Amino acid sequence: MLGRTYETQNCSAARTLEIVGERWSLVIIRHALFRGITRFGDFQRSLGISRNILTARLDWFVEQGLMERRPDAQGSAYQEYVLTDKGRELQPVIIALTHWGDRWAAPDGPPVVLRHAHCGGQIHQHAICDCGEHVTIDAVQADPAVH
Amino acid sequence: MLGRTYETQNCSAARTLEIVGERWSLVIIRHALFRGITRFGDFQRSLGISRNILTARLDWFVEQGLMERRPDAQGSAYQEYVLTDKGRELQPVIIALTHWGDRWAAPDGPPVVLRHAHCGGQIHQHAICDCGEHVTIDAVQADPAVH
Repeated sequence: MLGRTYETQNCSAARTLEIVGERWSLVIIRHALFRGITRFGDFQRSLGISRNILTARLDWFVEQGLMERRPDAQGSAYQEYVLTDKGRELQPVIIALTHWGDRWAAPDGPPVVLRHAHCGGQIHQHAICDCGEHVTIDAVQADPAVH
Repeated sequence: MLGRTYETQNCSAARTLEIVGERWSLVIIRHALFRGITRFGDFQRSLGISRNILTARLDWFVEQGLMERRPDAQGSAYQEYVLTDKGRELQPVIIALTHWGDRWAAPDGPPVVLRHAHCGGQIHQHAICDCGEHVTIDAVQADPAVH
C-alpha cells in the first residue's frame, strides 16, 4: 500500500517521498548504488539497522519495483536485492543530498568524493535549461503543467 | 539537537537526512522555495498539516539555520519564515525528487513543470564531470576522500 502522508499534495516531490521518504530508505538505496550491496546480511552489517526495519524496507522496495529479489548469482542460498532502473534513477536525489551535506554538514570535510569512473574527475550536478544555460536557484519557477 | 538516526553513517547524504529527512520537512522547504510561502498560516493552509508538526519543523529549520524568523515585511503582527542560503541550496534535492516523481509516480503526467524564468524552457538536472562530460548513472563512483 502506498503511503498517504502527502495525499493532499499534487506534487511529484511528495509522491517520491511517499515511496522513499521513510527513515533509512534513501540510505539503503545509496548503499546499493555506491557500494554494490545486494544481500540482506551485507546491508545489515553496513548500515547497523534492525532486521525488522531492513526487512520492511526491502520488501517495500520490491513491491514498489525499486528492487528485484533474485537467487544469488554465485549459486548460494542467499537472495539478492538488485536495483531496477526505477531504483537506480534515484541517483540524482542521492547526489544532491550528498553535495548539500558536503557543503553544510561536513565540518571535517566531505567523507566521500563522487567521481567520474572514466577519468576520476569530480562530479557536480547542475540544473540546465533547454536553452543551454546553467540555471541559478533564483531562476527556477514551478508552473502548473498543461495537459 | 541534531538527529542521531544515522550516526553510524559517515556519509553526507545521511547527514543531510538528519536535518531534512523528517516527514514533511522537504515538502515544507519546497513550498517556501517554489511558492514563496513565508507565514505559518499560509504553510498550514497550503500543506494541510497539523500546527504541532509545522511548529516543530519551522522551529527546527530556524535552529539549523535553514530559515530565519523575521518580522513581517509589510508591518503586520505576523512573523515570516524566510529561507537562508543554506535552506535555498536544498533546491537540487527538491528538483531531483520532482523529476523522479514525474517519471515514476505521475500516471496522469507531471502536475508541475520546472521552468527557467528567463526563457520558459524546461529544466533538467545533470551530473557533469570536471572533464565536461555528462555522467551516466553507471559512471559515478564514490571514493573515500583524502584529507
